[in-house]
Amino acid sequence: MTTFGESHGQGVGVVIDGCPPGIPLCSEDFVADMTRRRPGRHDLVTPRKEEDRVEILSGVFEGLTTGVPLTLLVRNRDVDSTPYQVLRHLFRPGHADYTYFKKYGHYDYRGSGRYSARETAARVAAGVVAGKIVAPLGIEVVAYTIELGGVRAEKVDLSLIEKSPFFCPDPVASKQMEEIILDARQKGDSLGGIAEIRVRGCPAGLGEPIFDKLDAEFAKALMSIGTVKGFEVGAGFGAATMKGSENNDPITPTGFGSNHAGGILGGISNGEEIVLRVAMKPIPSIGLEEDTVDRQGRPAKLKFRGRFDVSAIPRIIPVLEAMVKIVLADHYLRSKTIVPYGFAP
Amino acid sequence: MTTFGESHGQGVGVVIDGCPPGIPLCSEDFVADMTRRRPGRHDLVTPRKEEDRVEILSGVFEGLTTGVPLTLLVRNRDVDSTPYQVLRHLFRPGHADYTYFKKYGHYDYRGSGRYSARETAARVAAGVVAGKIVAPLGIEVVAYTIELGGVRAEKVDLSLIEKSPFFCPDPVASKQMEEIILDARQKGDSLGGIAEIRVRGCPAGLGEPIFDKLDAEFAKALMSIGTVKGFEVGAGFGAATMKGSENNDPITPTGFGSNHAGGILGGISNGEEIVLRVAMKPIPSIGLEEDTVDRQGRPAKLKFRGRFDVSAIPRIIPVLEAMVKIVLADHYLRSKTIVPYGFAP
Amino acid sequence: MTTFGESHGQGVGVVIDGCPPGIPLCSEDFVADMTRRRPGRHDLVTPRKEEDRVEILSGVFEGLTTGVPLTLLVRNRDVDSTPYQVLRHLFRPGHADYTYFKKYGHYDYRGSGRYSARETAARVAAGVVAGKIVAPLGIEVVAYTIELGGVRAEKVDLSLIEKSPFFCPDPVASKQMEEIILDARQKGDSLGGIAEIRVRGCPAGLGEPIFDKLDAEFAKALMSIGTVKGFEVGAGFGAATMKGSENNDPITPTGFGSNHAGGILGGISNGEEIVLRVAMKPIPSIGLEEDTVDRQGRPAKLKFRGRFDVSAIPRIIPVLEAMVKIVLADHYLRSKTIVPYGFAP
Amino acid sequence: MTTFGESHGQGVGVVIDGCPPGIPLCSEDFVADMTRRRPGRHDLVTPRKEEDRVEILSGVFEGLTTGVPLTLLVRNRDVDSTPYQVLRHLFRPGHADYTYFKKYGHYDYRGSGRYSARETAARVAAGVVAGKIVAPLGIEVVAYTIELGGVRAEKVDLSLIEKSPFFCPDPVASKQMEEIILDARQKGDSLGGIAEIRVRGCPAGLGEPIFDKLDAEFAKALMSIGTVKGFEVGAGFGAATMKGSENNDPITPTGFGSNHAGGILGGISNGEEIVLRVAMKPIPSIGLEEDTVDRQGRPAKLKFRGRFDVSAIPRIIPVLEAMVKIVLADHYLRSKTIVPYGFAP
Repeated sequence: MTTFGESHGQGVGVVIDGCPPGIPLCSEDFVADMTRRRPGRHDLVTPRKEEDRVEILSGVFEGLTTGVPLTLLVRNRDVDSTPYQVLRHLFRPGHADYTYFKKYGHYDYRGSGRYSARETAARVAAGVVAGKIVAPLGIEVVAYTIELGGVRAEKVDLSLIEKSPFFCPDPVASKQMEEIILDARQKGDSLGGIAEIRVRGCPAGLGEPIFDKLDAEFAKALMSIGTVKGFEVGAGFGAATMKGSENNDPITPTGFGSNHAGGILGGISNGEEIVLRVAMKPIPSIGLEEDTVDRQGRPAKLKFRGRFDVSAIPRIIPVLEAMVKIVLADHYLRSKTIVPYGFAP
Repeated sequence: MTTFGESHGQGVGVVIDGCPPGIPLCSEDFVADMTRRRPGRHDLVTPRKEEDRVEILSGVFEGLTTGVPLTLLVRNRDVDSTPYQVLRHLFRPGHADYTYFKKYGHYDYRGSGRYSARETAARVAAGVVAGKIVAPLGIEVVAYTIELGGVRAEKVDLSLIEKSPFFCPDPVASKQMEEIILDARQKGDSLGGIAEIRVRGCPAGLGEPIFDKLDAEFAKALMSIGTVKGFEVGAGFGAATMKGSENNDPITPTGFGSNHAGGILGGISNGEEIVLRVAMKPIPSIGLEEDTVDRQGRPAKLKFRGRFDVSAIPRIIPVLEAMVKIVLADHYLRSKTIVPYGFAP
Repeated sequence: MTTFGESHGQGVGVVIDGCPPGIPLCSEDFVADMTRRRPGRHDLVTPRKEEDRVEILSGVFEGLTTGVPLTLLVRNRDVDSTPYQVLRHLFRPGHADYTYFKKYGHYDYRGSGRYSARETAARVAAGVVAGKIVAPLGIEVVAYTIELGGVRAEKVDLSLIEKSPFFCPDPVASKQMEEIILDARQKGDSLGGIAEIRVRGCPAGLGEPIFDKLDAEFAKALMSIGTVKGFEVGAGFGAATMKGSENNDPITPTGFGSNHAGGILGGISNGEEIVLRVAMKPIPSIGLEEDTVDRQGRPAKLKFRGRFDVSAIPRIIPVLEAMVKIVLADHYLRSKTIVPYGFAP
Repeated sequence: MTTFGESHGQGVGVVIDGCPPGIPLCSEDFVADMTRRRPGRHDLVTPRKEEDRVEILSGVFEGLTTGVPLTLLVRNRDVDSTPYQVLRHLFRPGHADYTYFKKYGHYDYRGSGRYSARETAARVAAGVVAGKIVAPLGIEVVAYTIELGGVRAEKVDLSLIEKSPFFCPDPVASKQMEEIILDARQKGDSLGGIAEIRVRGCPAGLGEPIFDKLDAEFAKALMSIGTVKGFEVGAGFGAATMKGSENNDPITPTGFGSNHAGGILGGISNGEEIVLRVAMKPIPSIGLEEDTVDRQGRPAKLKFRGRFDVSAIPRIIPVLEAMVKIVLADHYLRSKTIVPYGFAP
């Protein structure tokens, strides 16, 4: 799987090589998830409108995947690069302008180019395909907000997630999040948060030993999202203060007696619910004046007036789900028993 | 890089394909790091003695790496599989016995076989080679304990690390850690902790955009160590409660005004110190009776009397350093400018 | 590098991940090579007209490659799937219809779908980029026809290649090729041939030992083109009848005394001209009636009336050049000395 | 799969990551194939004796592969580097001394080091494991000599292969080969040849479209053997002079009417016998004086008196079989249907 594209170029997309043949797939399959990611789903967090239609450029014939590379393209429409001209010479603090410039010698200052959150649209599209690969196993993936700007969900009722503008499973906390988001917007500032992802129905046996452990690959996949700064599985950082006798999950004839492991032992799924958590920094684009330097290293002040979200939440939620599905599908395809195509009964 | 080997087999080792030619390397180069990882360096935590000599099986000629695969082997010596016979039919809680059995249909019950912490000896050996690749850049990697069994280091004086049996930079905390370790051993229990890793002298420009971000690869590499359950970079989980105006590191002509990013922006190093943290669960081998099942799924009690450490700390510390060096070396080799061998002036 | 697309889908394309930054690239750069590959360059061999414009979907900013994935798309225009309806149930002899059906359970019968020679348009586009990577080394790649339908070029004057409709370096042979092509077309039959590829200016030191030898990778790259059935380097099959004392190229202070090795020793370039040869089968699409079976395995007669070329030559010639350039660029990028981007003076 | 080791180092070996679990494997399984490759099987071609015992360093437990990396080691025993001291400063014509020196800046002059044919012992060992993976499919691989020093086998009776010192299926030709080998040895010269490899029982559906075509991977795998200079599949170079109407294999209800394709269409096996051919150059080590240069580029005469074979045949024959089995096993494991381990009924 390779994604490509820039925020202010032609579009963003993904090529998936190794997608199994015979999976029904059409443009409409992408609508639900792309809509959940889209700015403007609720107009609290983002002032932008985008219509994100996924075009299937290759790999589908007569409504079925063919087994050869599947290419998905999400064209950019609502693109105005004018406000970004000021970034031609000034690096935005907290952004990758500076490091891209150091690495590549130039950078795409228009809406962050390649390192824009726009790139995650391609990930959500790929996640739809991954979802079709793991769904037959009975696997369900759900992500939700457990903390935003310091407000923490005190209860987790998964049935309430889609009703909250923040995919928050606690309606009281969701209401408070609304207030602090409005407050932060007014002040031109931004907020961070924590999300939790649960995988239900994952059978035991997924994951590779040593370097490609299932949790290690979840960590990489989720840390590869720009705003994610921390990752944990099961008890996570909490495990550091537990004793072995507390933390070890007893094994019983009907499953595990607790789930501090978060569904993964030795890098391989154990059949319990997989529980992951990620911390997101406040998004670096803010409306306040900041200290920076220009391309020549001279000090400068930057007050940038683009359109930007107040928080990575809620738009990051479907991206987290997509990345987890992609890792699961990848491990699933790797872990197949040995019956080649064409020999199967 | 591929590691191989089992704890109670012939040994553990690693093949490194892609190691540059011309690096001076001999068996003695490995002694210091292997000794730091060895059980019995301080006899508080582990009752085991191992002599871990690294044999160079291939890839070195006349004292220099040749550019072809480098194979390192650490033979097993002090191996007694007898106490493990009880594990032939019973899965240890918190261990990978159960998931290996589910995945592969059988498992090596002798000292955890492939998923033994013994495998990390090969990682430390590989880390020595990685260190020789990144050292000429001026890169230094140091890991140390900031929390063990709930005791937290209040100050960080890196010059004190090697003096502490726990690689703890705070002598007062180190003393307390000693006490709780002795207490836990007496009770047959185990303890978790938190370690911090700092990379100094890393130039800007290391790391790949999108999926192979430098921090994503650190996350994967460190989460691939059995006991690690959480990972964070820079402000990490703390960033979730910060505002953008606080969390953004101002850029100045002489560097960054703060380092909440932990030295990485958009997945690429920015020239500041890289700061990582990992949470370790208490090691699952304990001397207390536990509930489990046998291969047929019938309930059983397990009280296992092997030799085991009370905590992954301190032996994990050189492993953390090794993994970080390996990721750095890998990114360094990927990020080269385009001057082929043999053409260089 | 991943190609995607089908002959009767939206188009064919390629994503190149790992293209160095800072290379000037625009749509016009592709015109020359795409034209050489295009049907209708000379109207002897093919009755088709295609306009193959390369769109840059991502990876270029302000006229320079950015270092992130470069996506090139060649849209399909002149597409009429009607004549292919007969292939819905009948496998064409010599084509991959049968094997795709066996492997994937269905196949794209419209113009061969994924396994159409149309896919090579994406390779030629990628070859243009590869050419820009190796050109600064002084590397030149030229391919030409040395045999077509049994007519063999007796002399090799590289300056005449572009004047021949068959990229044939012998004008007398080229004239004869013209006649047998017309004859074969009239009879509804097709012809095979042999092409030679020369790489000049390749410095010593390209290629990896053991499995990724330079000639092994040339073999794979060229054999991956549908009609290629044989490959040789240097003296090739002729070396089988030579003695060591004849075949060994003497080494002299000014280079090698002969070039039976074809410029490669032990899988690594030796600084001499690289000489490769490939044999192409007659293309399987013919206008004569053939025996086949349908999807249910029942015998059938097939007489297919699509538009097809009489021979893979000449359109394959720029594809051969492209594949050789791609292999060279790949080895070149692998063989870099160790100076990371951003550190270079 | 990664091989490692040098001819005059500790030994040669291979790590196979991705070998399925549960395959019975022990040291004795390697004896037959290692013996076929061993010098001295028939004492016509080589004066050397080697005992090539394969040690299993990791990946087997209780006689079964575990699914984790399998490491095989063949120690070097009969090693005398003294005669090679002359090569410290002189490059042997036809060998890789020169190119390794150009690429890596130094080279292992003792018995060719890494690029010695000794490395193929590790390939034969890996081929035994690959054979165990493909055997259950009913796949059989056999290689034999069809030409040596210009003497061509006129008939192919596979039952006679093992009786011939040259694995030649024609006893008359085998006798003549014996004579020219003795003659060449007396003159201090060496001979080339051609071998054919047949794969029987390969089901349809193996191979990947586009770049990883089955024949492309066979080409790469076989061209990666030092002395191989040409490769063809099915009609091969002969296809260049055929018409489409001749070359296309008709499809009938009981299989293909002919096999010019050599069992592969569009890079995917079609269920017919797979037929491959390789051309080998005369091995470059000869006893005659040759022109060369030293490390400083000054002209020199070299007359080297090591122990060397007169021809790559017959010792290369089991190596060819091994490489073909490895490619088949690799494609087989890639082409699995989607039933993860642990879910299978």
